[in-house]
Amino acid sequence: MDLDELVVRINIETGQLEPYTRKIVRRLSDMKDFYYDKEAVQRILAKEDPIIYEVYAWERSTDEGNLSFATTILNPGKIGDEYYMTKGHFHSKRDRAEVYITLSGNGKIVIQDEKGNASVLDLVPNSITYVPPRHAHRTVNTGNKPLIFIAIYPSDAGHDYDVIAQKGFSKIIVERDGKPTAIDNPNYLK
Amino acid sequence: MDLDELVVRINIETGQLEPYTRKIVRRLSDMKDFYYDKEAVQRILAKEDPIIYEVYAWERSTDEGNLSFATTILNPGKIGDEYYMTKGHFHSKRDRAEVYITLSGNGKIVIQDEKGNASVLDLVPNSITYVPPRHAHRTVNTGNKPLIFIAIYPSDAGHDYDVIAQKGFSKIIVERDGKPTAIDNPNYLK
Repeated sequence: MDLDELVVRINIETGQLEPYTRKIVRRLSDMKDFYYDKEAVQRILAKEDPIIYEVYAWERSTDEGNLSFATTILNPGKIGDEYYMTKGHFHSKRDRAEVYITLSGNGKIVIQDEKGNASVLDLVPNSITYVPPRHAHRTVNTGNKPLIFIAIYPSDAGHDYDVIAQKGFSKIIVERDGKPTAIDNPNYLK
Repeated sequence: MDLDELVVRINIETGQLEPYTRKIVRRLSDMKDFYYDKEAVQRILAKEDPIIYEVYAWERSTDEGNLSFATTILNPGKIGDEYYMTKGHFHSKRDRAEVYITLSGNGKIVIQDEKGNASVLDLVPNSITYVPPRHAHRTVNTGNKPLIFIAIYPSDAGHDYDVIAQKGFSKIIVERDGKPTAIDNPNYLK
């Protein structure tokens, strides 16, 4: 094993990892069905296709016992009155937890159990948030600069995006009276 | 589940977690057999019993799939010419990895396989170091202020301190010509 490969630098300004094994760029067109205001989605896509978030992942093989990690740079912005957010996912292995460490920016994390009960927690710099097993999780940028965080997860957790793509989260985060507010998702499928 | 309990603050100056589930304080008297210069150990203990490091752990149950994490505040100092260090351990479940994120200070991490082959990597702020499965690991403060880092590990990893307590690491970090230097451990038991 080449142990020098075991050190990864975090660019604390940009959130980029160096090195990384996988980079993901999610534009609005990649997740247009995830926002509740379909007209707002089409209005924006007619003009541009903004980057909602980028992920720099450093992933090990999926052998049990390995850990992987990734930084996410979630841009500030809204689609209609709904804040920019990640797709959100369950783990394919449902009993795998995840740890989030917020580096900069301000936001929320929506944590939802398999029955659809959703809770919303604040993400603030220098805090660690535990995503318990069997909970889907989505992050939301409610601030005016990028929300940057590190996620650490078992390498064999896997990502199950399908349940959320089909059903959504039962709560979404929108701007109301100038403030981020959790409301029931009008498009949520029970 | 009370989701509010899932958020933990890191005091970035002191390294303390709030809340935490377990605090560990390691004084020189708790690890006097770990340093190679036994006379230096006795000379210091005759006058004082310094705190070498403190750990604030936030641990979940040992169910497979859970993750736990801890911050370590490793003080600067030397026992003879050997820098302050942690005891070091294997995981009881040998195939469990660990992720270290260095917050502040400068140091080294010694990573040793089960055959006793040791490698030394730098710990610098804003870097992530991966401790692969089946490797013992010890951190060393080679700077002049506290070395503070976060470790994230599977909750079922367990700590096996015995092998290291009995055999030691094959390499130790001492000051030579004013600089931290890895040398063969004269007390290492093969």
